[in-house]
Amino acid sequence: MPELAYVNGKILPIEKAVVPIEDRGYQFADAVYEGIASYNGNLFYLDAHLDRLERSMRALSFPAVSRDRISEAILELFERAGIARAFIYLQISRGVAPRNHAFPDAAEVQLIITIRPVNEIPEKIKKEGAAAVTTRDLRWGRCDVKTVQLLPNVTAKQKALEAGAHDAIFVAEDGVVREATSSNVFIVVKGEAVTHPLTPRILPGITRAVIIDICKEIDLPVTETFFKVEKLYGADEVFLTGTTTEVLPIVKVDGRVVGNGLAGPVSKRLLAALQERGNHPVG
Amino acid sequence: MPELAYVNGKILPIEKAVVPIEDRGYQFADAVYEGIASYNGNLFYLDAHLDRLERSMRALSFPAVSRDRISEAILELFERAGIARAFIYLQISRGVAPRNHAFPDAAEVQLIITIRPVNEIPEKIKKEGAAAVTTRDLRWGRCDVKTVQLLPNVTAKQKALEAGAHDAIFVAEDGVVREATSSNVFIVVKGEAVTHPLTPRILPGITRAVIIDICKEIDLPVTETFFKVEKLYGADEVFLTGTTTEVLPIVKVDGRVVGNGLAGPVSKRLLAALQERGNHPVG
Repeated sequence: MPELAYVNGKILPIEKAVVPIEDRGYQFADAVYEGIASYNGNLFYLDAHLDRLERSMRALSFPAVSRDRISEAILELFERAGIARAFIYLQISRGVAPRNHAFPDAAEVQLIITIRPVNEIPEKIKKEGAAAVTTRDLRWGRCDVKTVQLLPNVTAKQKALEAGAHDAIFVAEDGVVREATSSNVFIVVKGEAVTHPLTPRILPGITRAVIIDICKEIDLPVTETFFKVEKLYGADEVFLTGTTTEVLPIVKVDGRVVGNGLAGPVSKRLLAALQERGNHPVG
Repeated sequence: MPELAYVNGKILPIEKAVVPIEDRGYQFADAVYEGIASYNGNLFYLDAHLDRLERSMRALSFPAVSRDRISEAILELFERAGIARAFIYLQISRGVAPRNHAFPDAAEVQLIITIRPVNEIPEKIKKEGAAAVTTRDLRWGRCDVKTVQLLPNVTAKQKALEAGAHDAIFVAEDGVVREATSSNVFIVVKGEAVTHPLTPRILPGITRAVIIDICKEIDLPVTETFFKVEKLYGADEVFLTGTTTEVLPIVKVDGRVVGNGLAGPVSKRLLAALQERGNHPVG
């Protein structure tokens, strides 16, 4: 299972792939990205990822990039690597140009893709649930655009690990719970699932949308509304959703036990339903 | 006057310099930077830039990098390029490692430097002043740390150019004037200079500090305090300060004429004093 990179049309081993130092992704974080997983050799919700990628590029006035070019590149790399349970990382930057804040007049977007096996969360954590800590949300005001401005996510994740937790959950100054460092947050209260609404403050997660869809399918009430950190602490269940996070039960937040401290029935049911969709895609 | 890059000890033409795609600067904006200018072959306030660089790295828990190593690299490149009025761009990333938010266990920081002539603001604009527009500050909460998370700066600068202005000034939700896209903002009201205090919301500009020092030297009252956009509109003078911006008079903000619409006497005097320090460094 080779770990490969695609760089503007060329496929090579990841560790050999390079970009010019004046790629605007490197000097200005002027780049957007997507992360796509496969189950059993099937790419999961590729179209939804490409839709969101296009949305990110439009939000930043990137030059248009042909969707066919992108999906062909993904499929070529996916086929070449032959990894059944793969994580595909795709990054598009505005281009390479002498350093200058203004958009370059003549630069071509850079399309970089990597593929390697999914770095799975350990089975024990997936089954028994993970601990999380909360952290003040200091990110910029357009977290709905999936850019590589991930430094606050990096430092929050690291802070969580150093505190013996698995992840950090961003909380706004007014106490509103946003999302985790690379996943959305749901709580379950009295049989109802609740998650932050789609605003510029959170990423419109693909898995978030799939989970909402599954909730509707199984008649589990689901609400997109703001909730505060006290409600997080007092929830019956808390779980994170994301492309490789799938549905991860959170059983401890800031040292407080959530519910009975075990992975809850709603989290388990949603994880099973999500994986079922991954392993047996319809249509 | 060759435009050169220094990449972890190797010097080569800028356009030949590359970094691995998994440099964390590229995928997470996990990198800090400095921009240093020279006057007449003398680097301007190099020590202050290195102090700030170290502060940025400490704030992000970067592994320590020897100050000697950095300054020797800068001086070697500066000597090799032989550009009297040079702009040196220096970027340090946390390192290269397979993509994962958490800090890598074993990665070496990447030290990249480029040198080319200063891209001077046209003489006419420097003399007659420039137009600016204001824009909502959507940046993250640690703008005092000089990271490559510059996407909001990029889009704000572009918005200004498209509106026929030279630069954009960030204004907080409550109307407080922060700074411009790559420079600090001063206003002059009744003979007193005013600028935003040093908080996590603005960059502690080297030129800002030099200008405050010059103000004190020439007995010009200077205050570091918050002021709102109405005060900006009604100021006698407005000017930006930065490494290559030097002191740039702003004569129009959001289409409103500032003062009498001409570069003001305080701006002119401070620019002359700044350039005097650059061309005739003391000690």
